[in-house]
Amino acid sequence: MYLGIDLGGTNIAVGLVNEQGKILEQDSVPTQREREPEEIIRDMVRLCRRVTEKAGDTLKDVKAIGVGSPGSVDNKTGTVIYANNLKMKNTPVAAQIQKYIGLPVNVENDADAAAYGEYIVNGNGARSFLCITLGTGIGGGIILNGQIYRTFNSAGTELGHSTLVHDGILCGCGKRGCWEAYASVTALIRQTKEAIQKYPESLMGKLAEERKKVSGRTAFEAAKQGDPAAKAVVNTYLSYVADGITNMVNIFQPEKLVIGGGISKEGERLLKPVRAFEQKYGYNKDRARTNIQAATLFNDAGIIGAALAARDKAKMA
Amino acid sequence: MYLGIDLGGTNIAVGLVNEQGKILEQDSVPTQREREPEEIIRDMVRLCRRVTEKAGDTLKDVKAIGVGSPGSVDNKTGTVIYANNLKMKNTPVAAQIQKYIGLPVNVENDADAAAYGEYIVNGNGARSFLCITLGTGIGGGIILNGQIYRTFNSAGTELGHSTLVHDGILCGCGKRGCWEAYASVTALIRQTKEAIQKYPESLMGKLAEERKKVSGRTAFEAAKQGDPAAKAVVNTYLSYVADGITNMVNIFQPEKLVIGGGISKEGERLLKPVRAFEQKYGYNKDRARTNIQAATLFNDAGIIGAALAARDKAKMA
Repeated sequence: MYLGIDLGGTNIAVGLVNEQGKILEQDSVPTQREREPEEIIRDMVRLCRRVTEKAGDTLKDVKAIGVGSPGSVDNKTGTVIYANNLKMKNTPVAAQIQKYIGLPVNVENDADAAAYGEYIVNGNGARSFLCITLGTGIGGGIILNGQIYRTFNSAGTELGHSTLVHDGILCGCGKRGCWEAYASVTALIRQTKEAIQKYPESLMGKLAEERKKVSGRTAFEAAKQGDPAAKAVVNTYLSYVADGITNMVNIFQPEKLVIGGGISKEGERLLKPVRAFEQKYGYNKDRARTNIQAATLFNDAGIIGAALAARDKAKMA
Repeated sequence: MYLGIDLGGTNIAVGLVNEQGKILEQDSVPTQREREPEEIIRDMVRLCRRVTEKAGDTLKDVKAIGVGSPGSVDNKTGTVIYANNLKMKNTPVAAQIQKYIGLPVNVENDADAAAYGEYIVNGNGARSFLCITLGTGIGGGIILNGQIYRTFNSAGTELGHSTLVHDGILCGCGKRGCWEAYASVTALIRQTKEAIQKYPESLMGKLAEERKKVSGRTAFEAAKQGDPAAKAVVNTYLSYVADGITNMVNIFQPEKLVIGGGISKEGERLLKPVRAFEQKYGYNKDRARTNIQAATLFNDAGIIGAALAARDKAKMA
């Protein structure tokens, strides 16, 4: 068994994961991210013990611990180099956990960990595999020949910060026109709000008013019920998603690509237009094509991927 | 010594290349691409013999032969699967050359071969290396951990067919807004012609009239002499180049990236604004940065890269 730690800006989640990537037990506590790294690490350790006990096991049954952390990570040394939503800077996370628990500890970037989890569980051994998560932002992980693609400088592979609209909307990163600014859930919510301002009488507008909230589901829900304003929002949004996915297919020609994040729960409503766009506009017309699917691990991807990356590193050691 | 064959739609060029990647002797003949593959291969063989003899050597001094071919290539079997500007379809190029010359033959996609040549000569052993060629189109090759990144389906890595302008200009590939449609030399020539139509009295317009031709150099040349219309063309063009290069940096965080093609002869006039854009808008602000340089092998990259890829495959065998 393995322990997977998903260190987030909001919660620290820990799961006990078996060889097959199944979570046997899990628990979480708030990160309270303004705290000193030492306190956060102590909570990670406490959760590791608690989850193992809750499962009726002991740490002797655990072979390795994996951490998925935001920001840039040095996998070789197990250090979180920098995470802008935590107080960590060159924090030797692996070494500090090992002070408490004498097990091998492996540290990955959180997007990489999630991608690795999806790869092991859903990748069917693909030679090249992309996991693209449409959430608050757009994150991505690249798995080549079964290995996480690591950049030379430990910076992330920012697939969401490729320009989709030259000189377009200002993105949070400071560049204009990033894919993330058009196809993240944050962008969908903005697009939905703009359409509601224009068509307050639409079903979409009524749904938002009833719930006093616009979410990534509002437009999809109203569109399903036939609302033309919502359909327009969904179609435009999907064209951004599909165009960006097709870019990644043209660049990598991955054997498999999975789309994660809450929006992937839309299933075929999301996948069908994306596949159709890629089949029509993807550069490759005469070779085998990328298999595009929805991710299936959702919020568990980080825990599972961190645990399995630790499993595979421990096996290689 | 090694023989490198650059099979193009216009010419077949062959060079005798030493261990260090230097061309000792070279020669070429027109491809006459409408011919049967067998005739083209016979010319490749003839050129191999001729170039070796011209250098005062014999085929006994040659250790391997490398081919760079357009289209999709199966490197394992040495087959050109499909090349839309040649009559080749599942043509066993390696086997056919070996019928005449009993040496190991390695076949690569031409963009990959050129990237590999630049990598060996200019890569300084970078863990990740991109070579992006701005020419008639935009081609790219990806070298990771010293190996050409090969797609699972042998289709090319079409970096130029990532969308830069969602719903933009129709690209030759059928998709709208590809980077290639804005930042290739073909695009620059179109942008120059459009500006000349608007400002026929500009220095740029006069240069074009004098030479009865608009080339990729016209706007750069007039801009150097202070022509404001030409400066606007160059600046807009460079903003497309820089935005796309920054995309590739954000996606791969390559240790080194070189820009090839005729336009790279502009040197700092091209590189300075690209580097400035990437430094300002690249996502990674706090880690080591991608080293962006001009490619140096120009038209020889294909021959040298094909030869060196054959060298390294022969050494591994």
